[in-house]
Amino acid sequence: MGEGRNKEFLMQYGYFDDQNKEYVITRPDTPQSWSNYLGSTAYGAIITNNAGGYGFYQSGARGRFLRLRFNSIPTDQPGRYFYLRDDESGDYWSASWQPVGKPLSEYDSVCRHGTGYTVIESKYNGIRSQATYYVPLGQNFEYWRLNVTNESDRPRELSLFTYCEFSNNWETTQDGVNLQYSLFIVRGEYLDRLDNCPSGLLRITSQDNLPISTDPAQGDVGRCVWMGLTGAPLSGYDSDRAAFLGPYRGYHNPLAVERGGCSNSKAYGDNACGALHCQITLQPGESRQVLVLLGIGEARAVGAQTLQTFGSFERADLELEKLKAHWHSQLGRLVVETPDEELNHTLNVWGLYNCLITFNWSRATSLVYNGERDGLGFRDSVQDILGVLTAIPEAARQRLELLLTGQVQNGGAIPVIRPFEHRPGHEKAPAPEEFRSDDCLWFFDAVPAYVNETGDFDFYNKILPYADQGEDTVFGHLRRALEFNLERTGRNGLPCGLLADWNDCLKLGFHGESLFVAFQVYRGLKILAEIAQALNRPADKAWAERERAKLEERIRACAWDGEWFIWAIGEDGTVYGTKDFEEGQIYLNTQVWAVISGAATPEQAQTCMKAVRERLATPYGLMLCAPPFVKTSIEVMRAVVFNPGVKENAGIFNHT
Amino acid sequence: MGEGRNKEFLMQYGYFDDQNKEYVITRPDTPQSWSNYLGSTAYGAIITNNAGGYGFYQSGARGRFLRLRFNSIPTDQPGRYFYLRDDESGDYWSASWQPVGKPLSEYDSVCRHGTGYTVIESKYNGIRSQATYYVPLGQNFEYWRLNVTNESDRPRELSLFTYCEFSNNWETTQDGVNLQYSLFIVRGEYLDRLDNCPSGLLRITSQDNLPISTDPAQGDVGRCVWMGLTGAPLSGYDSDRAAFLGPYRGYHNPLAVERGGCSNSKAYGDNACGALHCQITLQPGESRQVLVLLGIGEARAVGAQTLQTFGSFERADLELEKLKAHWHSQLGRLVVETPDEELNHTLNVWGLYNCLITFNWSRATSLVYNGERDGLGFRDSVQDILGVLTAIPEAARQRLELLLTGQVQNGGAIPVIRPFEHRPGHEKAPAPEEFRSDDCLWFFDAVPAYVNETGDFDFYNKILPYADQGEDTVFGHLRRALEFNLERTGRNGLPCGLLADWNDCLKLGFHGESLFVAFQVYRGLKILAEIAQALNRPADKAWAERERAKLEERIRACAWDGEWFIWAIGEDGTVYGTKDFEEGQIYLNTQVWAVISGAATPEQAQTCMKAVRERLATPYGLMLCAPPFVKTSIEVMRAVVFNPGVKENAGIFNHT
Repeated sequence: MGEGRNKEFLMQYGYFDDQNKEYVITRPDTPQSWSNYLGSTAYGAIITNNAGGYGFYQSGARGRFLRLRFNSIPTDQPGRYFYLRDDESGDYWSASWQPVGKPLSEYDSVCRHGTGYTVIESKYNGIRSQATYYVPLGQNFEYWRLNVTNESDRPRELSLFTYCEFSNNWETTQDGVNLQYSLFIVRGEYLDRLDNCPSGLLRITSQDNLPISTDPAQGDVGRCVWMGLTGAPLSGYDSDRAAFLGPYRGYHNPLAVERGGCSNSKAYGDNACGALHCQITLQPGESRQVLVLLGIGEARAVGAQTLQTFGSFERADLELEKLKAHWHSQLGRLVVETPDEELNHTLNVWGLYNCLITFNWSRATSLVYNGERDGLGFRDSVQDILGVLTAIPEAARQRLELLLTGQVQNGGAIPVIRPFEHRPGHEKAPAPEEFRSDDCLWFFDAVPAYVNETGDFDFYNKILPYADQGEDTVFGHLRRALEFNLERTGRNGLPCGLLADWNDCLKLGFHGESLFVAFQVYRGLKILAEIAQALNRPADKAWAERERAKLEERIRACAWDGEWFIWAIGEDGTVYGTKDFEEGQIYLNTQVWAVISGAATPEQAQTCMKAVRERLATPYGLMLCAPPFVKTSIEVMRAVVFNPGVKENAGIFNHT
Repeated sequence: MGEGRNKEFLMQYGYFDDQNKEYVITRPDTPQSWSNYLGSTAYGAIITNNAGGYGFYQSGARGRFLRLRFNSIPTDQPGRYFYLRDDESGDYWSASWQPVGKPLSEYDSVCRHGTGYTVIESKYNGIRSQATYYVPLGQNFEYWRLNVTNESDRPRELSLFTYCEFSNNWETTQDGVNLQYSLFIVRGEYLDRLDNCPSGLLRITSQDNLPISTDPAQGDVGRCVWMGLTGAPLSGYDSDRAAFLGPYRGYHNPLAVERGGCSNSKAYGDNACGALHCQITLQPGESRQVLVLLGIGEARAVGAQTLQTFGSFERADLELEKLKAHWHSQLGRLVVETPDEELNHTLNVWGLYNCLITFNWSRATSLVYNGERDGLGFRDSVQDILGVLTAIPEAARQRLELLLTGQVQNGGAIPVIRPFEHRPGHEKAPAPEEFRSDDCLWFFDAVPAYVNETGDFDFYNKILPYADQGEDTVFGHLRRALEFNLERTGRNGLPCGLLADWNDCLKLGFHGESLFVAFQVYRGLKILAEIAQALNRPADKAWAERERAKLEERIRACAWDGEWFIWAIGEDGTVYGTKDFEEGQIYLNTQVWAVISGAATPEQAQTCMKAVRERLATPYGLMLCAPPFVKTSIEVMRAVVFNPGVKENAGIFNHT
C-alpha cells in the first residue's frame, strides 16, 4: 500500500489528535480491530476500538484472566462490554458499536485511544454514553467508567449491564485446548454482604492454575478475580456465561439483556462471566455514572479493600489524571519541531508511544499472539531499547542490564527472557544447536546508544553476570558477543547462520554462512575498537582491528554478486541472493547492512543501493522469498526506517 | 439426574428409531450439541444435530482440516452448512436450524443421526430441505447431499450456498495459537477448467504442515483440500472467509448470503472457507438436488478423479446403501431379545454403536478434546475391546495385538499409542516415574474375553514384540503385567499407585499404595493361574497362586475399614477412604473390585455393598472427592455398568 493511499485510507476512519495525545477513531467499523494497551507489565490489558480484548497478569500466555477468542468472527470478541437497554421498548445496544452492532445509520460512535486509557463515546436513540477504561498506575485492577446522558426530551428508564468473560485456566493455551479439564474448574458467586464493601462483589476463582508468581506477597492473584460496581444499586448479576447469554445466542444478543434482567447465576464449571445489572431513570438532559472495578486477588480481602479505597468517582478522576500526567511526561522529554507535521507527531507522540508500549510487552501480547510467545524475545527487546532511550533512559538501562544477563558465557543468548522469573547465573544455556547467530550483535546498537544518550560512559565497566555462569564487564559482554560468532565460522570463514540469523524463516543449515551476520560482526568490531580506544584498552582495540581486517578479506572473497551482495551461503554450498534465482535475487538486509557496517566499498554501496531502488518500485519485487511473507516485509521496514524497534504486533499504528 | 427424569428430558428432544437404527432429534435447540461420527479412522468427521463439527485425517489433533471453534457460543460452530435464500424476498435460512437460527415457531427441523451418516430435514416458508452427510466406505472424502422441495403453491427462485471453514494449520493447537504463522499460510482458489472435471473445484492448500503420514502413497493429503458441487451450475464461490462472511458478521448472517452472491474471492493468507453458490428455480411441488464432495488430496489429481467417479446421485445413493449395510451387519451379529425394550435397543443398537465409535476414535476426537489428546489412550483402548468383541472380533484382535505391543518389556505400558505411527520394538519406554499402575492389568479383561468369544485359544501362544525391545507370547505379556506391579510395592507390600492408578486425579504419591490396583492384581493372578492350567504350565500356575496368597494376606492386613475397603494408603501414610474423612469416605471402585476380584470375604462383600447402596441413594454422597467431578462420576458409571468401554466423550448418547 503506497503512502498516499495509506493516509487517505486511514483518514476514512480517524485522525491523530496531538493536542490530547489521542488517536480518534470516528467510525467503528474499522477493517481490523485497532487496539490500545492499558496497564503495566504486572497488570496488562488490551482494548480495541469496539471494547474487545483481554487482560493478563505478568504474562499474556500464562496469566490470562480475561478471555478473548482469537481469530474468531469478529476478531476481537469478547471484551469489556456495557450493554444498554431501553426498559420501555426493550430495545438494546452496546456502549461500543460491537457486539450488538446497531446499524451505523442510527448509531454514532467515536473511540479515543489515549496514553494508557481508551474512551468510547456513542449515541443511539437519544442516549449518549461514554465508556472510559484504564488501569491506575501501579495497581492490579482496572476501571470501566460509564457516563450515560439522556439527550431525548422525555424521561428514560434504562438498564445497564456489564459483560466480560473469565478464563477458566489462566494458562491460555490450556484454556482453549484442554476442555476435559478446563471446563470443570471455575466458580463464580456474588458476595453481597461484606463489611467494608456494601455494594457487594462478584468473585471468580479457578480451582487450579499454574502458579505464575513465586512471590508470596502475590498470594492467590493467580486464581482469583473480583468485580464490583458502584454508582447505582445492583439489580442482579450473572457469573455463569450460559445463563447470561442464553442458549444458541452470542455476544450480540444476550438473553439477559433481551429479557431485561439477569438470573443471579453462580458459575460452577463450564464458563464464567462478569455480568452486573443496574437500572437507572434519566430525566431529559440528566446524566448518571456508574463505575466498575475489576481486578485480581481474593475478593473478600483485596477486592473489598480496593473498592473501598478506589471506588469513588473522585478517586477515579484523580487516577486518570495521574495516569495521563505519567505518560505525557514520558512523551514530553524530547520534542521535535520540523516543517513536516507528520514527522513531528510520529517522533513526539505516536511512534514514541508505540515504542514505549513495545518496550513494555515485547511481542508477547496482542491480537496475534495467543499464548505462543511468553516473555521478552531476546533480540527484539535489545532492539526495542533504541526507541525509548530519550523517554525512559533509566528503565532502558534496567532492561539493557536484564538483557545483558540473558547472554550466556559463550557469548550467545537465551532466546526468551521472562522478567519476573529470570535468575542470572542460574539459567540453563541453550543447547549448541539452539543458538541463533545475531542475538547479541544487537548490543552494538543498544549499548552505545544508551551511553551516548545518557553520558553514562562508566556503564561499559559495570560488572554483570552471564545468564548461566560467570560475570564480566559490559565491555567484556560485548567482546564475548563477537567472539561467539568468530568462533563459529563456516568454510569461507564467515559467521555461521546457526539455528537462524535475523531471518528466522531462511534455513541455511547450521553451518551455512550469513552475510547479514558477517556485516553485523564487521560493524561490531569497529564499534568495539572505538570503545576500547576510549576505555584505554589497546589490546582489545588491536584484537578488534585485526579480526576486522581478516573478516573484511573473507567478505571480499565471496560476498559480491556483481551488482549486489549475496545473502548467504548455505551449508550445502547454495549461494542465496544472486542473479541465478528466479525469486529472491536481492535481499535488502544485506545491502543495507553492507552499507551501514562500512564493509561495502563506496562503489559497491552505490551499485547495490541502485539495484535496491530499482526493485523497490515494484511491489514484492525484492527478496520476498521465504514464507511467511509478512515477517520478511516487516524486516524490510525495520531495515529502512531509523528505529528497528517498531512494534510488529497488531497495534493501533500498524496501519500508519 | 435420576433415570426417570433423564428419560423424560430426552424425550422432549427426540427418540430412538430402532427400525432405521437412527436417533431422531425432533427439535434442534438441544441443551448441548449432539454429535455423530462419520467416516473411518483415516478420514473422520464429527457432525452435530445443527450441522456443526469438524473433519480430520488420521488424527483429530494433527490432521484437522475442517475447523471448529471450541467452547465458543454456540459450542459447535462452524460446521458443514447449507444456506438457502429466497431470491425474491432476500430472506435466508440454513438447512440446519443453526447457524441462522430462524424462530422455531416458523422453522421445523428433524435430525437423524444414523450409523455413519446424518440427515437433517427442515421446513421453512414453504421450502423443505434434506441435507445428508456421510463418508463413503474406505474413501478420503465426504458427501453433502441437499434435496430441496418447493411445497408452496408458487414458483420459487432460490440461492443455495455451502459453507465450511478450513484450518490453516492441520495441527489444531497451532491453528488456534500461533497466529503469527498460521494466518499467512493458506491459499484458496477455484479451478474452473479441468479436463476431467467440467464442474470445477475449489482448491485449498496450506503451505506448510507437519507431515502426518510418512507413507509416500499419501502424497500431499496433509496439505490439500478440495471441494466440488454438482447438480446445478455454479453461480460463484468464495474461498476467503472474510469475503464470504463480511466485516463484523458471523455465521448467522454472512454477507454473501444476505446479498445473494459470492465475490469469487481467493484466499491468500488470513482464513479460508468453502463457499459454493448456485441458483435454482423450483415449480410448485418440484424437487432439486445438489451434491457436494469435499476431500483431502491434490485437487487437480485426487479431487478431479474423485468427482468424476463419485460425483453422480446414483453413485452417492449406492455409497450410502453400502455404508448402511456395512454398519447394520456389524450391529446385527449379536441380537438380544428381552422383555425390556430399552435393554434390547441398548444392547443391539445404541450401546453397541457407541462402543464401535469409541473403538475407532478412543477419546481423541470430540467436542471436548481440542488437540490435547492424540492417539489411543492405552488403558481406555484396552477396555474398549470389550464392547465390540461380538460385532468385530477380527478388528478387536488386531487392536488387542497393537495394544499388547504398547506394553514395554518391564511390564508397564506407554500411555498413548498412535496407530499410524506405532513401531513396536522401537518405541521409547516411559521414564520410571511416568508409569501408571493399572495400564496392563486391563488385559485380564480384554484378552480372556477375546479368547472366550472366538475360541482362539492359541492366541495365548502368539508371540508379539514389546513396545521398546524384546518379545514374548501373549501369555508372557500377561505375566509381565503382573510382575510389573508385584515388583513395585510400598511399605505394606501392596502395589504402588505410581504416577496414577485408574483415578488420574487422586495423587497418592509415587510409592503410595492403591487397593484398587491390588484387587486388579489379585484378580489377574487368579485368571493367569486358570490360563496356565489350561496351557499346561504348572510352574506359572504355582507362581500365580503363591503370589496371590501372599497378596491376599497383605490385603487382609490393612484394607478393611470396618464397613468397607479403603481406597489407598498415600506415600505419606494417609489412609484414603475411611470414616475419618468428612468427604470421600467410601470409594465405589474399591468396593466393586474387591467383590469382582474375589478378594473380599463373603461377609465383607455383603457389608461393603450395603454401605455403597445406602450412599448411592444420595446424589454425590459417594467418593466424589477429587476434581474434576465429571471424571470421577464417569468412573462410577464405568464400575456399575457391565461395559467399561462406554464412551466418555460428548456423543449422542451421553445423555441417555
